[in-house]
Amino acid sequence: MSLANLRTHYTADVEPEKVDNGQKITLAGWVHEVRDLGGICFVVLRDREGKAQVTLVKKKIDKDLFNAARRLVRESVITVTGNVKFEEKAPNGYELLPEEINILNVAGSPLPMDTTGKVDAELDTRLDSRFIDLRRAETTAVFKIRHEVLQAIREYFVKHKFLETATPKVVATATEGGTALFPITYFDREAFLNQSPQLFKQILMSGGFDRVFEIGPIFRAEEHDTRRHLNEATSIDVEVSFADHFDVMEILENLVAYAYTQVIENCKSSLEVLGVELNIPKTPFLKLTYNEVIEIINARSEEKMHWGDDLGTLGEHTVGDYVYETTGESHYFIIDWPTEIKPFYAMPYEDRPEFSKSFDMMHRTMELSSGAQRIHIPSLLKSRIESQGMDPDGFEFYLKAFEYGMPPHAGWGMGCERFVMTMLGTDNIRDTVLFPRDRRRLSP
Amino acid sequence: MSLANLRTHYTADVEPEKVDNGQKITLAGWVHEVRDLGGICFVVLRDREGKAQVTLVKKKIDKDLFNAARRLVRESVITVTGNVKFEEKAPNGYELLPEEINILNVAGSPLPMDTTGKVDAELDTRLDSRFIDLRRAETTAVFKIRHEVLQAIREYFVKHKFLETATPKVVATATEGGTALFPITYFDREAFLNQSPQLFKQILMSGGFDRVFEIGPIFRAEEHDTRRHLNEATSIDVEVSFADHFDVMEILENLVAYAYTQVIENCKSSLEVLGVELNIPKTPFLKLTYNEVIEIINARSEEKMHWGDDLGTLGEHTVGDYVYETTGESHYFIIDWPTEIKPFYAMPYEDRPEFSKSFDMMHRTMELSSGAQRIHIPSLLKSRIESQGMDPDGFEFYLKAFEYGMPPHAGWGMGCERFVMTMLGTDNIRDTVLFPRDRRRLSP
Repeated sequence: MSLANLRTHYTADVEPEKVDNGQKITLAGWVHEVRDLGGICFVVLRDREGKAQVTLVKKKIDKDLFNAARRLVRESVITVTGNVKFEEKAPNGYELLPEEINILNVAGSPLPMDTTGKVDAELDTRLDSRFIDLRRAETTAVFKIRHEVLQAIREYFVKHKFLETATPKVVATATEGGTALFPITYFDREAFLNQSPQLFKQILMSGGFDRVFEIGPIFRAEEHDTRRHLNEATSIDVEVSFADHFDVMEILENLVAYAYTQVIENCKSSLEVLGVELNIPKTPFLKLTYNEVIEIINARSEEKMHWGDDLGTLGEHTVGDYVYETTGESHYFIIDWPTEIKPFYAMPYEDRPEFSKSFDMMHRTMELSSGAQRIHIPSLLKSRIESQGMDPDGFEFYLKAFEYGMPPHAGWGMGCERFVMTMLGTDNIRDTVLFPRDRRRLSP
Repeated sequence: MSLANLRTHYTADVEPEKVDNGQKITLAGWVHEVRDLGGICFVVLRDREGKAQVTLVKKKIDKDLFNAARRLVRESVITVTGNVKFEEKAPNGYELLPEEINILNVAGSPLPMDTTGKVDAELDTRLDSRFIDLRRAETTAVFKIRHEVLQAIREYFVKHKFLETATPKVVATATEGGTALFPITYFDREAFLNQSPQLFKQILMSGGFDRVFEIGPIFRAEEHDTRRHLNEATSIDVEVSFADHFDVMEILENLVAYAYTQVIENCKSSLEVLGVELNIPKTPFLKLTYNEVIEIINARSEEKMHWGDDLGTLGEHTVGDYVYETTGESHYFIIDWPTEIKPFYAMPYEDRPEFSKSFDMMHRTMELSSGAQRIHIPSLLKSRIESQGMDPDGFEFYLKAFEYGMPPHAGWGMGCERFVMTMLGTDNIRDTVLFPRDRRRLSP
């Protein structure tokens, strides 16, 4: 006997178009609630797709079955076989009149946290008992939407002839010569967890792969412990040959709009559970130059910004609010950053090399993506590495790919979690990761 | 000006249905070959999708252009703008009569390896100069097929209501208590690279996610340095609630058949480049019990197998050949393994606990996937951990998820690289990874 045949329907699939009134079905899930009113007992069964009310009238059914139902322990795993009764007044338009209830695993009690939504739990409590937090409709909804975002993004890439790639996470060299690295003992050698697929996706451009995407984990040993930092995150990375920064900005804004479109279309019930109403971002996104951003901040904020400064949190908010007020949109680009505050591989403008062909894509309150046209000229690249105080010898495996026919190319990386977070207005980035890793948290 | 507008077509898109005879187009790519015959010069331009012949007749065109073409350095990056001339006798049915050749990056010489296919290179040489190896049509073909395999697999999962998940790669505990772990310094603590999403995908079953898949990196510090082992690989993982091992075997065989179907349908030219002809594996796959496997081996091989032994390489070949000879198929399952030689989480049969509800999916010469119905009863799980000599305390974060309503569930993991390797008959698993990581190789 196949266990899968135990379940005939998800709770949400019991609709008049799919099921006959009186039809015998089997649901499988968790005991969400038991309401014992003496002569009648309601058992609410919950599965991934929703809830169903199982109704037991004492006078009408077997005594043992009735007693078994009354004694069900919350969050135990059960299957219920019974007949569907469509009933407009019932919670989801139907109730199930049971013939058999099968207890597959009894839950311990008390539960480590509440699942009914009646008691608010702190994020840390929820993450400590993530297995039970995930049973809450709100938490499930976030991950259903994350799922849809990823499918939409991949669909967009595949349609536009991108090749999916997987580059190594265990590497010998820091991507950007930075310090935020987790060291690994790799057999008898030292290695690191990769901070970004940057160098590898550029090598693939030399390999003629033309347009690639990768969606995978990145690791940053940053000490930040904020609402919007993770030490292990999912990065959506893109690199395109024979393209400049404007070309890949266009890909990015269209991709964002497409992901919103698909979520709106395919995640109606999850958005409803979260109380989120989405609008498709209007393309093209507004482009502000770095210099314009300085002007906006200095006109509107006490905290002044000088040429060469990076954008602070307050500055991000100031500009984000300005954009939202003037355009009604949350997404925008900041372009033409000073070469010195961008990574060594960003291409300087030929006619004003203190500015680079780089951009950030912003959401109202935070950066979502960084990108640039990259340097494809080996001599210029080497001198940029040196002028940022690093040793080109450490980048030999990378520089070699530029010596024998590297095309001009551009690309970007976007944090998947920040994208989902800004889409849903989630307060903490940890809410968008199943098992977040941060400065303090390594488990579960 | 947008750089992307430099290219109007891939070489393979120049076909009579898409392009007019005489139409002006721009191709972008690498100088694959220059054949200078004195009065006529042929430049072969190569891009990801193929090659095009650029024909320059000395008498008919500008002298500077002709001389520039003759002097082109192999593997340099160029764009060529010219007029299409459909010509049945030309290599791909057309030649390009150039108006302008633009050199974007000049390649150094000599090249670190040959790209024309005229000189065979050792795998190590190819991997050392992977950026240039990837320009070979055969190498590109493998990664185009890998791309298609992944899209097909995800499509299958999404259609069957699986949720895509991403579980952490940095973990505090070894998945299976094994020793093949890479240690990480995680701030001031010791952590490890995860060997498998096993424990986390099981926790998700307790979280009510019902059916999940994950495609991501796994890390195994095995000392093996063979044709079919990697220390960093891509794992395709599945877990399904209210399912047993037979249910997830059915998912697996259908998935394999679907991936083959999609590759046959969508990767014709890549298969042709590789000289591979694929047949869709027939489902359901043959199921041999572990006991039957012992009988087959002992009847056909000098190397005897005893009850409780794992299957050796020779044994795999013996059984694989037997299956192929008797059924004409390469894929099959071995089911009902001894409980003792499978991981602690495999469910023993109730009526004969020395056998477990576990399986391997085999290809003629190697194991592709392992799976099982899992233990969902906490007391049994704890005693299995202990009887394998491990301490349940180390698994607290995992065992907790079983105490409050864990449904019965089953799942499997399959190595993406081995799947591609067996599909294409690749000799070495490293040929299916862009930048392989093994005992000796950390770069590029």
